[in-house]
Amino acid sequence: MAGQDTLLLVLDLAGIFVFAVTGGLVAVRRQFDMFGVLVLAGATGLGGGFLRDVLIDATPPAALADWRYLLVPVVAGVAAFAWHPAFARLERTVNVLDACGLGLFCVTGALKALDLGLGPAPAALMGMVTGIGGGMLRDVLASRVPVIFRGELYATPALAGAAIVVVGVHHVPLVLVALVGGGLCTSWRLLALWRHWQAPVPRGSASV
Amino acid sequence: MAGQDTLLLVLDLAGIFVFAVTGGLVAVRRQFDMFGVLVLAGATGLGGGFLRDVLIDATPPAALADWRYLLVPVVAGVAAFAWHPAFARLERTVNVLDACGLGLFCVTGALKALDLGLGPAPAALMGMVTGIGGGMLRDVLASRVPVIFRGELYATPALAGAAIVVVGVHHVPLVLVALVGGGLCTSWRLLALWRHWQAPVPRGSASV
Amino acid sequence: MAGQDTLLLVLDLAGIFVFAVTGGLVAVRRQFDMFGVLVLAGATGLGGGFLRDVLIDATPPAALADWRYLLVPVVAGVAAFAWHPAFARLERTVNVLDACGLGLFCVTGALKALDLGLGPAPAALMGMVTGIGGGMLRDVLASRVPVIFRGELYATPALAGAAIVVVGVHHVPLVLVALVGGGLCTSWRLLALWRHWQAPVPRGSASV
Repeated sequence: MAGQDTLLLVLDLAGIFVFAVTGGLVAVRRQFDMFGVLVLAGATGLGGGFLRDVLIDATPPAALADWRYLLVPVVAGVAAFAWHPAFARLERTVNVLDACGLGLFCVTGALKALDLGLGPAPAALMGMVTGIGGGMLRDVLASRVPVIFRGELYATPALAGAAIVVVGVHHVPLVLVALVGGGLCTSWRLLALWRHWQAPVPRGSASV
Repeated sequence: MAGQDTLLLVLDLAGIFVFAVTGGLVAVRRQFDMFGVLVLAGATGLGGGFLRDVLIDATPPAALADWRYLLVPVVAGVAAFAWHPAFARLERTVNVLDACGLGLFCVTGALKALDLGLGPAPAALMGMVTGIGGGMLRDVLASRVPVIFRGELYATPALAGAAIVVVGVHHVPLVLVALVGGGLCTSWRLLALWRHWQAPVPRGSASV
Repeated sequence: MAGQDTLLLVLDLAGIFVFAVTGGLVAVRRQFDMFGVLVLAGATGLGGGFLRDVLIDATPPAALADWRYLLVPVVAGVAAFAWHPAFARLERTVNVLDACGLGLFCVTGALKALDLGLGPAPAALMGMVTGIGGGMLRDVLASRVPVIFRGELYATPALAGAAIVVVGVHHVPLVLVALVGGGLCTSWRLLALWRHWQAPVPRGSASV
């Protein structure tokens, strides 16, 4: 249905916007100039989808064929550049929105990989990559260790959400499985932030 | 015409050579060994084109199908390895040549993206990516924040040059639009270096 | 023959396992959490093949179409996470196995590139990329300068092994050329480790 497609597009662009804002804020904190802020916003917002599309050969990436996918990160970058003090005060809100973007992307990434004929396990992995790829690219470009490798759970919820989609898609209506998968991912991520849940850390690694 | 193709090839290889020299010099400064100097020279010289070709699915990249595209960065790397004190003294010359390479790559990158059917905005973006991608890859591999995110204008001229090509290519003879686009990019970059023009920096970001 | 295919698969998976262990150990040393250890193990084990497949357009990469290619790095990552003190004591063994993986990957990478129609020089380069790509990706994600750019010879043996395969494949039985190419690469790497052979370093670069 056209209405459903429009809804998906709006959600996708909203996810890109939120991720792009987090990229822009990291750039501001590192004192990048206007251009650096825009690039980091774009890389964070679009990086996960790019990485997925390059790996599963769905090129050219959708983001290069639709101007809205380019406009949204630019707007997010300009917003981060101009209003970063406000965003910094709204850190909690940004985190909640970021968790929503994660839930959204792990679902759409897994569905796209299934569409292109990947098996269940790789499709779930691609869902996770779509969710976390932008943040990894952001941190590599900002020359810091990706935050998803330390700190509160981030990738595990994304993988779980994508796995639910992959398992359920042939048994349950699409909307339902998307809501359950994305909802689980988002709420798990928010709980992890709130309760400071972390993945286990290697024993004794500090002394190595 | 064969003459025009030859001219384009020579210009392309000249741009790769100059970029590769800058990569080799960064590697020398970081005390990489001979091999590291060669890799960083190659990644800087060819990275922008690789990135573009992978994104728009023009694979395998031209650089893998033509031995001259491999030979040129090797020669540049060996030259940087052997004569880096001379190059360091010629810093101004290297900067001028680098600006010429930037002007060249933003034009050829945009034209190639248009050839492959991308729309105007993504094609201009791909022109910019072709120009700046090698330098970004160089800095990521050297584990430092890409210099194009701070300091004098670099990407804005490349985007402007590519945009001129994209807009003008259907209205003006190719040679003319390439000269205007590339010339604007190169001269803007040189002016920025000379007058220390920088992109705006976020207000108050130092204190965040 | 089916037996030969099985042998190749087992060798390939063994190489991925060893590389993935080295990635997991770097992650443990940097105090990544469980997830970070798994990602770094996966990126190191599969990164070289991914890079090659994306560059020569053999996508989706084999690793996404065969669950064993995903399982092996996960097992290696879990092993590194759980038994890193033992692996640290076995550093010499890990280095020997890593050299064997390097010899294996430079051969299979070059053969795959030849299969896809690349010329001799690019095919040898792709063999080297397959061997060293995982380690480079590991170090970029861990935000450190790739170790292959400094220290004992690593990439040169891989390039030499791949070059032997590329030159010999049309003149000598496949098994023989693979053994000679891979064997040269592995033994050269081990000798370099043992005798501390390094690639030449630029003169006076420390003072630049």
